Amino acid sequence: MAKKALTKSKATNKTNHGNFFEDFYVGMRIVHATPRTINDGDAALYTGLYGGRFPVACSDETARAMGYDKAPIDDLLVFHIVFGKTVPDVSLNAIANLGYAEGVFQTPAYAGDTLRSVSDVIGVKENSNGKTGVVYVRTTGTNQRGQVVLSYVRWVMVRKRDEKSIAPKPVVPQLASVVPGASIPVSSSLRFSAYDTSASGSPHRFGDYKKGERINHVDGFTVEEAEHMLATRLYQNTAKVHFNQHTEKAGRFGKRIVYGGHVISLARSLSFNGLGNAFKIAAINGGRHVGPLFAGDTVYAWSEVLDAWAVPGRTDVGALRLRTVACKDHEPVDFPGTTKDGYDDSVLLDFDYTVLMPV
Amino acid sequence: MAKKALTKSKATNKTNHGNFFEDFYVGMRIVHATPRTINDGDAALYTGLYGGRFPVACSDETARAMGYDKAPIDDLLVFHIVFGKTVPDVSLNAIANLGYAEGVFQTPAYAGDTLRSVSDVIGVKENSNGKTGVVYVRTTGTNQRGQVVLSYVRWVMVRKRDEKSIAPKPVVPQLASVVPGASIPVSSSLRFSAYDTSASGSPHRFGDYKKGERINHVDGFTVEEAEHMLATRLYQNTAKVHFNQHTEKAGRFGKRIVYGGHVISLARSLSFNGLGNAFKIAAINGGRHVGPLFAGDTVYAWSEVLDAWAVPGRTDVGALRLRTVACKDHEPVDFPGTTKDGYDDSVLLDFDYTVLMPV
Amino acid sequence: MAKKALTKSKATNKTNHGNFFEDFYVGMRIVHATPRTINDGDAALYTGLYGGRFPVACSDETARAMGYDKAPIDDLLVFHIVFGKTVPDVSLNAIANLGYAEGVFQTPAYAGDTLRSVSDVIGVKENSNGKTGVVYVRTTGTNQRGQVVLSYVRWVMVRKRDEKSIAPKPVVPQLASVVPGASIPVSSSLRFSAYDTSASGSPHRFGDYKKGERINHVDGFTVEEAEHMLATRLYQNTAKVHFNQHTEKAGRFGKRIVYGGHVISLARSLSFNGLGNAFKIAAINGGRHVGPLFAGDTVYAWSEVLDAWAVPGRTDVGALRLRTVACKDHEPVDFPGTTKDGYDDSVLLDFDYTVLMPV
Repeated sequence: MAKKALTKSKATNKTNHGNFFEDFYVGMRIVHATPRTINDGDAALYTGLYGGRFPVACSDETARAMGYDKAPIDDLLVFHIVFGKTVPDVSLNAIANLGYAEGVFQTPAYAGDTLRSVSDVIGVKENSNGKTGVVYVRTTGTNQRGQVVLSYVRWVMVRKRDEKSIAPKPVVPQLASVVPGASIPVSSSLRFSAYDTSASGSPHRFGDYKKGERINHVDGFTVEEAEHMLATRLYQNTAKVHFNQHTEKAGRFGKRIVYGGHVISLARSLSFNGLGNAFKIAAINGGRHVGPLFAGDTVYAWSEVLDAWAVPGRTDVGALRLRTVACKDHEPVDFPGTTKDGYDDSVLLDFDYTVLMPV
Repeated sequence: MAKKALTKSKATNKTNHGNFFEDFYVGMRIVHATPRTINDGDAALYTGLYGGRFPVACSDETARAMGYDKAPIDDLLVFHIVFGKTVPDVSLNAIANLGYAEGVFQTPAYAGDTLRSVSDVIGVKENSNGKTGVVYVRTTGTNQRGQVVLSYVRWVMVRKRDEKSIAPKPVVPQLASVVPGASIPVSSSLRFSAYDTSASGSPHRFGDYKKGERINHVDGFTVEEAEHMLATRLYQNTAKVHFNQHTEKAGRFGKRIVYGGHVISLARSLSFNGLGNAFKIAAINGGRHVGPLFAGDTVYAWSEVLDAWAVPGRTDVGALRLRTVACKDHEPVDFPGTTKDGYDDSVLLDFDYTVLMPV
Repeated sequence: MAKKALTKSKATNKTNHGNFFEDFYVGMRIVHATPRTINDGDAALYTGLYGGRFPVACSDETARAMGYDKAPIDDLLVFHIVFGKTVPDVSLNAIANLGYAEGVFQTPAYAGDTLRSVSDVIGVKENSNGKTGVVYVRTTGTNQRGQVVLSYVRWVMVRKRDEKSIAPKPVVPQLASVVPGASIPVSSSLRFSAYDTSASGSPHRFGDYKKGERINHVDGFTVEEAEHMLATRLYQNTAKVHFNQHTEKAGRFGKRIVYGGHVISLARSLSFNGLGNAFKIAAINGGRHVGPLFAGDTVYAWSEVLDAWAVPGRTDVGALRLRTVACKDHEPVDFPGTTKDGYDDSVLLDFDYTVLMPV
């Protein structure tokens, strides 16, 4: 007994327990740890995890022919790395990741670039239950030259440290429902007129897709614990629910929950079959993690063309606004999505984003 | 109901459902997607998947001392990447991968090279059941300079789209039963006289192996779902049976089937213990996937020396024709292989190939 | 029957069955296979396996600002690769890995370096049971320029080939209980005065840690079979107990045992939360694998500051001697460790090492 007491008296608290709702205020800027040099190995492991086949991210030759320095890092790998850095500061005490908006992929990232993340708190609103609140952050990922590779807004529901603490003045930012086509950055050094569809195996170009069109991506991936944990650690995402069965067995679901971003990457990879020339994600307009994914489940996806836009000043490339829905243990021949009561039970993800596609 | 009908009316089919037997004809050339720049990360993940220890593929220093630019990419990783590209076009509707022949590894591949695959249909023969046929393709993998890194023939049994379609005139190519020693390419810039067996830890050189000799490779690897799926996605192989438990649970075996090439790589890695100086696969003479492998099974291997050949013009390196048999859940002390009724139940793979070994 | 006999007569033994206790003698030098060029992909897979966030190993920019060429390879990845090479020669017939001492990380390793290992036998002592003995080796890992990257002593209990063989004269080396602070190499080209704690997210510098202080690292990682096997193959560690369920099901525990080094790396990664600026392991003073880890178990860790030393001639960096204890399925709020009877049942690892931390 005496020994235990001694032990406790020597214990100090140098660990990060994350921020609670009260810790956030509008105007707060958070510089996230850890700068990360992304490399060819990250790209290779990403290929092993998702099997992506979009040619620009797979082939230095294809990428150079379009004006890239070499194959750029997959957009979603950039997203996950930029996002992962924010977890210890923003969402360690989050109950739910509620949404995304205004995501724009700007300067491409290449192997060798070092990525950092900074978040600005742009909104806080306590929930009426007095136990939680919603925090809105705009996160900016930059490379070693200070160029922005990605910025996006997300909002999360975060626990209060003390239920008796007084609610802050609510600030809810006005967020665009879609990143306008005119805001989508396409560098003038890139040229897509020489794009060869044999590189993707899909003959369908920008003009072949029509607003309202739906595509069942057919294939499915069953997810294993080792895979999603490898992925989530690769992103240095530290959310406990993905990794710790010892605590999760007593949690909400009795098991580890797969990182929602893993579902986004699985859906993007599955979407190659039907959208093979959608070589780049240019913007994230919105997204909702509708239901949880667990190891053993099989992920499918289908997409709808929400809109098709010309890119200002370009005749070689157009932008498609897509909605990709991921669902589990359900072949999406019937395009499961929203119902009058919410969502079909099979739905995992409802993701609204804009891709570039050669004309 | 009205909504469902609307949904269906908007569905379009831009997905690849693969070729059926009727789609293939002798003389047909298929340019496969996706060009792929192979990198150090692919090599590292390959090491994590198989634990290979052949020194030339592991060490830039060892490789340079023999005249390579740096450590070449493992021959079987090249094979899997070249092969993987052919799956969406050749074997998405295949029932079985029947055989390989005339495989030759020519120009070495290095990290940074971009690999492409092209297949020429060299034979078609409908089966007497009228439901399936056999397609023979010669696949050629090239690098960004157009140099051939690998060519090989494989034949697969493919479903017909329509059982009533008329059988084509049967063409069955004459294939060599073995790649002759004289056809094995050994670049004059490579020199093996300085090869140091301490790099492999095995003292046994070319002259120590005798025709008819058998080696039990002793070790075993138990295979997990996450491993074979990581591997198969790394190769961008899209065959559905490896990935989708939701559909496979109603399939032939009730579970996912491991890609046959994963077994080849496991057997090759196991063969290091007994063939430590067989630093390079030069040719694939033939191969048969005898039985399916599933997660949870343990793979063992044994080898027989089928022949030992001098390499024309070389006194520093010889060629061994080997037969490596992989089996499962059975220590191969009794060298399980063919029986009078076919194969021992434990056998997974019967692989006939030629390796180079310093004299 | 005749066929089986023929088969057996042709079987030859070219496989490595490892050394037994009788094979070791003081003064014996073992040059281990296989030289290995470590690359960015190894580092990326290591990140996927452990999720490490110490900034120097993650960011070329951070590393260069401190005088490194680029991000050095994680110290424990170097350790595992150097160690892995010794397994086929030193511990294939080992029953237990008993301890470590005098481990010093000298020249940093970078992607592109080729590592080799050599071991010198410095002690042998037969156990009183006549069945086993203890072998002490000093292993040295060098790069392609012959610079020492790591040297350490370990001792293992190894089976005798023949219980009737005569015991050698016992030699037990005198080993330091701790690598003295004055022996810790810190290159004069490195400078830590510009170290920015925002890179780690932890504000705690060298001066903030006090001897006797204990830190519960809070987080836990559940381990899967696929993960520890990927890791252990990445290190080219060939110990059978980690890979072969077919034989292990009849073994001591009925299942595969996780490589002890995997536990060290998990504990190191977990220790980031509380020791975020402990950017480098400089020395391994000792270590004991107290209990076995199996897939499905969840690993936690806590640390105690054993000592805090100035580094001779430096005012920018100090050395902390740490004890990190890993335990399983037990949140270490009570700092489980030694008891009067040995160790708490939850303890896996008791690791004594020295880290560098900016002042």
